[in-house]
Amino acid sequence: MALTDADLSRLAAAVDEERLWQMHMEMAKFGATPLGGVCRECLTPEDIQARLLLKRWAEELGCDVSIDAIGNMFVRRNGSDTAAPPIATGSHLDSQPTGGKFDGAYGVLAGIEMLYALRDANIQTERSIEVINFTNEEGGRFQPGVMGSQVFVRPNELERMLGVVGTDGVTMAEALAGFMAEVGPVNTKPLKAPFAGFVEAHIEQAPRLEETGNIIGVVTGIQGARKYQVTVRGEEAHSGTMPMRRRKDSVLAASKMVVALHELMADPDDLTRFNVGRFQAYPGAPSVVPGQVRFSIDFRCPNDDKREVLGNRIAEVCSTVAGPCDVEVLEIQRAETTPFDQGVMQVIARAADRINCPRMDLLSGAAHDARNMARICPTGMVFIPCEGGISHNEVESATPSDLAAGARVIAQTVAEMAG
Amino acid sequence: MALTDADLSRLAAAVDEERLWQMHMEMAKFGATPLGGVCRECLTPEDIQARLLLKRWAEELGCDVSIDAIGNMFVRRNGSDTAAPPIATGSHLDSQPTGGKFDGAYGVLAGIEMLYALRDANIQTERSIEVINFTNEEGGRFQPGVMGSQVFVRPNELERMLGVVGTDGVTMAEALAGFMAEVGPVNTKPLKAPFAGFVEAHIEQAPRLEETGNIIGVVTGIQGARKYQVTVRGEEAHSGTMPMRRRKDSVLAASKMVVALHELMADPDDLTRFNVGRFQAYPGAPSVVPGQVRFSIDFRCPNDDKREVLGNRIAEVCSTVAGPCDVEVLEIQRAETTPFDQGVMQVIARAADRINCPRMDLLSGAAHDARNMARICPTGMVFIPCEGGISHNEVESATPSDLAAGARVIAQTVAEMAG
Repeated sequence: MALTDADLSRLAAAVDEERLWQMHMEMAKFGATPLGGVCRECLTPEDIQARLLLKRWAEELGCDVSIDAIGNMFVRRNGSDTAAPPIATGSHLDSQPTGGKFDGAYGVLAGIEMLYALRDANIQTERSIEVINFTNEEGGRFQPGVMGSQVFVRPNELERMLGVVGTDGVTMAEALAGFMAEVGPVNTKPLKAPFAGFVEAHIEQAPRLEETGNIIGVVTGIQGARKYQVTVRGEEAHSGTMPMRRRKDSVLAASKMVVALHELMADPDDLTRFNVGRFQAYPGAPSVVPGQVRFSIDFRCPNDDKREVLGNRIAEVCSTVAGPCDVEVLEIQRAETTPFDQGVMQVIARAADRINCPRMDLLSGAAHDARNMARICPTGMVFIPCEGGISHNEVESATPSDLAAGARVIAQTVAEMAG
Repeated sequence: MALTDADLSRLAAAVDEERLWQMHMEMAKFGATPLGGVCRECLTPEDIQARLLLKRWAEELGCDVSIDAIGNMFVRRNGSDTAAPPIATGSHLDSQPTGGKFDGAYGVLAGIEMLYALRDANIQTERSIEVINFTNEEGGRFQPGVMGSQVFVRPNELERMLGVVGTDGVTMAEALAGFMAEVGPVNTKPLKAPFAGFVEAHIEQAPRLEETGNIIGVVTGIQGARKYQVTVRGEEAHSGTMPMRRRKDSVLAASKMVVALHELMADPDDLTRFNVGRFQAYPGAPSVVPGQVRFSIDFRCPNDDKREVLGNRIAEVCSTVAGPCDVEVLEIQRAETTPFDQGVMQVIARAADRINCPRMDLLSGAAHDARNMARICPTGMVFIPCEGGISHNEVESATPSDLAAGARVIAQTVAEMAG
C-alpha cells in the first residue's frame, strides 16, 4: 500500500531539528578534538563507544540490531511484510584522524531521526526499513576505505580485508574482535543480504550547494577514482659528508615526483582531483640522507577516458624525475564512475519539492558506501551544504536546519520506497 | 718526562687488532639490525646496555668511571701527576636509527684499546688519560646533536638540554634518570672540568681517504653548519571534492621548497652539503589534503661567507614557492667552521709516520664532539677510511687493520701529549 503525499508531509514534519542536532553533539563527544572536530578512526575505542551509543538508541526505539562479518551494523524497523527485502539508509560513524562532526555521522543520525519520525508520525511501511553504520569508510587506520560496504557486496573479499594491518600494527580482524567483545550478543546479518533500495545522506564536502544557494543535492553518481602507493628507494648516507653527486636522496626524488605529477594533472576546468596526503621519509633523521620515501596518491576524475590515460602515466612521470633513485608505483584501488538509479533520483527530487527545498543535481567527488550498494540495489544519495565546502577538517560545519532538511528528504524517500 | 720514540713505537705495537675488532663486534650486538647495522639511539635500553658494557671494560682495566650532569662517561687511567689536567680521547656510543657499527663506537673503543695497550706495554704517563663516551652525539631521538660535549663545555645550557623532548615524548632528563638508575654508584665529573688536550678517532664518513689510498686523515677542522626546522601550514580538505584552485596543499608547497632549495644550493665544486632528512605530513591520510608539513634542513659548507649568504636566503626561497600556504623557517643550530690545533695535528702526523701509515690532511664535513672540545683545550681528530665513504647507513663498514692503524695513531698521540 503506497503512502499518500499527506503521509509523507506528516513524516517530514515529524523530523525534529533539535533532536537531530543533539544526537550530533552527543555523538561528537567520542573522539572530540580541541579544535572542535573528531578523531574517531575505525574500531578505535572512540569508534566502539560511538557504535555502542548507536545500539542504545536502537534499543530505545525498540529496533533490532544485527551485525555482519565485517562489523557493519543494521538497525531494523519491521514493515508489514517482513519477508520482503528492506529499504536502507545510512553511512558511517568512523572519521578521519582530524575529521569533523558531520562527515559520515550525519548519514547514520539522519537515519535514526527518520526512525523517531516514523514512530512519532505513527507510520507503518510495507517493507522493513534499516539504518546502516558501515565499517571503515574513511580508510585512514585501515586501507582501503569504503571497506565495510565493499565486503558486504563482495563477500569473497572478507578474508583479505580482515588481514589488513592498520597504521598501528593491529589487524582488522583483531580490531573487530575488540568491538564484538564489547557489543554483547547480537543477531548476525549475512553478507550480501538482499535490499530493495539504499539512499545515503551526507554533507557535500564541496562548495557547489553553498555557491548556488541550494540546500538539497540530488546526487547523480560518484566519480571514478584510482589510488596508488609509491615507494622511492635511495641510499642512506651522512648528510654532512657524502658528496651531493654521489647521493641517492629519496626525499628530493619524491618531491620532484609530487611537483611533476601536479603538473601532469593540471586541469584548466578544475574537475580533476589529485592528492598526495601521506608522505613518509625514512629513517627521518635530520643528519641522514633519507633512504626511502612512501607516499600515497588519490586521483579522481569524472571523465573515464581522461582518468584512464592520466592514471596510466603516473609511473612513467615518477620514473622520469627519479634521478639515481628507484621508484615503484602500485595501484591499490580503482573504481569506475558510478551512476545512481534514475528512479531513486526522482523520488529524492519529489521529496525536496514537497518541503519546498531548493535542489540541484550534482556528481559526488568523494567516494561513499552508496557506490558499493549501487551494485546490489537501486541506490541514490542526498547532499546538504557544509560551510565553505570544507570537510576532512576539524572545522567542518553544517547548520541544524540544513541537517533537518536533508533528514526530511531521506525520511520521505525511504518511506516512499518502502511503501 | 717525555716518552721516547721507542716507547711510542712499543705502545703502537701493543695495540691488538683482533681485540679491538672483537670489542666492536661485541658492542654492535646492542641494537643490532637485520641489515648488519645498529639502532642504538641516545639513552634507549640498547644505548644503556652499551654504556654498562663500557663500564665493565673500564673496571676490568682497573680504571675509575665518572659521569657528568648530562651523562657523559669518563674512564680514567691515572698518570704520575694526578693533579695536572688530563689528556682525553673518545667519541660516542649512540647511533642513528639506521646506523652502522663504527660511527662513534670506534672513537670510544680505540680509546679502550689504547688503555689495554698502555697496560700491556707497561707505560706510565705523567698526565692522567681519560676515555670519554659523549651523550647524544647523533641528535636523532633528541635534537640537537653533539649535545653532551656542548653541555660539557657550556654548562649554562644544561637545564635547557635536559628539558628537550625526544621523538618518543620522553625528556632528556627522564631518559638520563633511567640510565643513572641502572649504572649504580659512580663518581661525579664536574661540567667543564679542565683538560690539557683532546683527540678523537672516527671513520671518515666520506670517500676521500679511500679514493686517494690514504689510511690516516689528519683532520684540519670541521666545516660550519646551519640547521633549520621548516613548518608549512595549509588547510585540510577532502581530496575527492575540494577544487584544486581552492586548496592549500602543504605537501605540494613543501615539495616545491625542497626542489627550489636544492637548486639554490647547487654547487659545481660539490663542496656544499644540503639535506632534508625529516619530512612529516599531517594528518597523513590518503584522502585528506595535508594541512601541515614539517621538514628539517641540514646545510653545511666550509666557506663561511657562502654559508652565511645561502643560509640567509632559505626563508625567502621557501616563501617564493609557498603558494597559498604559510611557511615558517626556524634556525635551530649554527656552527662556524672550527679549525683544529696545529700542534695536535703535528703530533698526529708524526704518529702516522712512525708506523709508516700513508696520511693526508682533510677537513671534516661532519660535526663531532671534538668541535666542542676545541673550545676548552688543544684538540685534533684522526680519520680512517670507511667503505665507499658510506655512513649513517646499516651497511657502513671499516677494515680491522684500518681500525687498528687509527688506534695506534691515537695511542701514540695521547701518550705523547700526556708525556
